[in-house]
Amino acid sequence: MRILLSNDDGILAPGLAALYRAVVDLGEVVVVAPSHPQSAAGHAITLRSPLTVQQVGLGAGREAFTALSVDGRPADCVRLAVRKLLPAPVDLVLAGINAGANVGINIFYSGTVAAAAEAAMLRLPAVAFSADVGAQEVDFDRAAGLCRWVLDRLLACGLHPGQLVNVNIPVLGPDRPRGVRVVPQSTAGVEDSYHRQEHPQGLESYRLGDSFSFAPAEGLTDVACLEEGYVTITPLKVDLTDPPRLDKLAEAQKTWPALPGQ
Amino acid sequence: MRILLSNDDGILAPGLAALYRAVVDLGEVVVVAPSHPQSAAGHAITLRSPLTVQQVGLGAGREAFTALSVDGRPADCVRLAVRKLLPAPVDLVLAGINAGANVGINIFYSGTVAAAAEAAMLRLPAVAFSADVGAQEVDFDRAAGLCRWVLDRLLACGLHPGQLVNVNIPVLGPDRPRGVRVVPQSTAGVEDSYHRQEHPQGLESYRLGDSFSFAPAEGLTDVACLEEGYVTITPLKVDLTDPPRLDKLAEAQKTWPALPGQ
Repeated sequence: MRILLSNDDGILAPGLAALYRAVVDLGEVVVVAPSHPQSAAGHAITLRSPLTVQQVGLGAGREAFTALSVDGRPADCVRLAVRKLLPAPVDLVLAGINAGANVGINIFYSGTVAAAAEAAMLRLPAVAFSADVGAQEVDFDRAAGLCRWVLDRLLACGLHPGQLVNVNIPVLGPDRPRGVRVVPQSTAGVEDSYHRQEHPQGLESYRLGDSFSFAPAEGLTDVACLEEGYVTITPLKVDLTDPPRLDKLAEAQKTWPALPGQ
Repeated sequence: MRILLSNDDGILAPGLAALYRAVVDLGEVVVVAPSHPQSAAGHAITLRSPLTVQQVGLGAGREAFTALSVDGRPADCVRLAVRKLLPAPVDLVLAGINAGANVGINIFYSGTVAAAAEAAMLRLPAVAFSADVGAQEVDFDRAAGLCRWVLDRLLACGLHPGQLVNVNIPVLGPDRPRGVRVVPQSTAGVEDSYHRQEHPQGLESYRLGDSFSFAPAEGLTDVACLEEGYVTITPLKVDLTDPPRLDKLAEAQKTWPALPGQ
C-alpha cells in the first residue's frame, strides 16, 4: 500500500512524525507537507505563485525518514504530490495528527481536513486525524496509537476512492478515551471575539482573541462526544448541497416568472 | 433591512460595486471587503495577525459610497464585521459578484462562498453570487440585474437565519441565460496540472497551469447547467456529514473490540 501523509501544522510538527511512525509498517509512506504551519488555512490553494519543493530529513537513528516540504497550503501539498511529485498512484491519504481538535464547523477552517478533502476530490480514500488539546501538551505517541487503531477498523470496513473520514482524539487521561463514537458533524456556532489593538500608524486594528468555545450543541455530535472524552469518527463528503431546501426551492421555482429579457 | 456585502476579489473589484448598485435600494448596505484579491483563499481565517480596517470611498458622483477594507481573508471580513465593526445586527449577507464561476468542488476553494458560509455559521441568511467568465469580460451590470432578480425570489421564498444559497450566472450572450435551474452541487473532479519551472536557486518548483476543466459530471448539477447557459441556484449547508456512510460505519462499530487500554 502506498500512503501519502500530509498535515497543516507543517513538516516539523510532532504530530506528523508520530503518525508516520504509527503507519509506516502498512506499506510505503511518502510525506509531503507544508514548509510552515498552516493552521486555519482552510481549503485555500495557491493559484499564481510557484510551489517550491525541498527534501527534508526528519527523525533520528532507525526512525529517520525523508519528507518533501512544499511552501504552500495543505491542499496544495496533496494536489501537487498526487498530480506531479509521486511516481506512482497513491492508495490512501492521511492528514495529521493536528495539534487541536477539528470538529463542528471548525472543519471548514481546518487545513488538516482540507488536505484529506482534497484527496477525496482526487478520488482517493482519505482520513484526517486531529487531537484535542487540554491543559497539557498532546501525547502524540499515544494519540497516534489510537489513530492507527481507528485506521485499521476503517480499512477493514472498506475505505473506497473518494471516501473521506474525520477522526478526532479527545484530551487523553487515565480514564480517557472513554470509547469510540461514530457521529455527525455539529453545526453549532462558535463563540469568539475580536479585540481592538494599537496600530503603529494609528489605524483601526483588531485581533482574534484566544478564547474560543462552541455554542451549546444539540444531540450526539462530534463536538459533544469529543468533549465527553470519546474518540469521534465522522464520515464526510465533498458536497454541501442541502437536499430538503433544494426540494423546497425547486418547488417554489415552478411559480417564478421568466427571467427579465427572456 | 441591513445588508452586509463582501467578496473575495477585493474591495476594488467591479463585481462588488455592481452588486452594491443592484441591491442598495433594499435597505442599508454596508460593504466590508478584503483589501486585496483573495481568489482561492477558501475558508481560511486569520488567527494570529491583526486585521487592519480602513475606510475607502468607492464609485463616483451620485453612485459614490463608503466601504471598509480589511487586510484579511473573505471569511475574516464577515466575522469581523458581524462581531465587531457593525453597530447593529445584520439581516442578510451577500458575497460577490465573483469574477469566475463557483460551482462543483470549486466552491471549497472559493473565498466568495466562504464569506457567505461564514455568515451562515453566524446564523445569518447568506447568498454567494458568482459570474462565469467566457471569452469576453463579465458584463457585471447585466449579471448584477440577474443576481437581484434571483435574490428577490429567494427573499420571497423566505431566506432564514443560517441558510446559505450559492448562485451562479452563466456566460452571458444574446440567448443567455437560457433560464434558471435549482440544482445540487456537482462532486465531479477537476482536471488541471502543474508545470515545472525555473527556480533562482535551482530548487524544484512547480506552478499550477491556467487550463482547467471539470471531469464529465453525471446528472443535473450546477456544473452541467451553468455550462449549458442557465443561472444556477444551489442551497448549501455547513455540514459535511455523509449520512449513508455514517449509518454504515455506526453499524460496523458494533462489532469492534474495545479500544486498547480500556
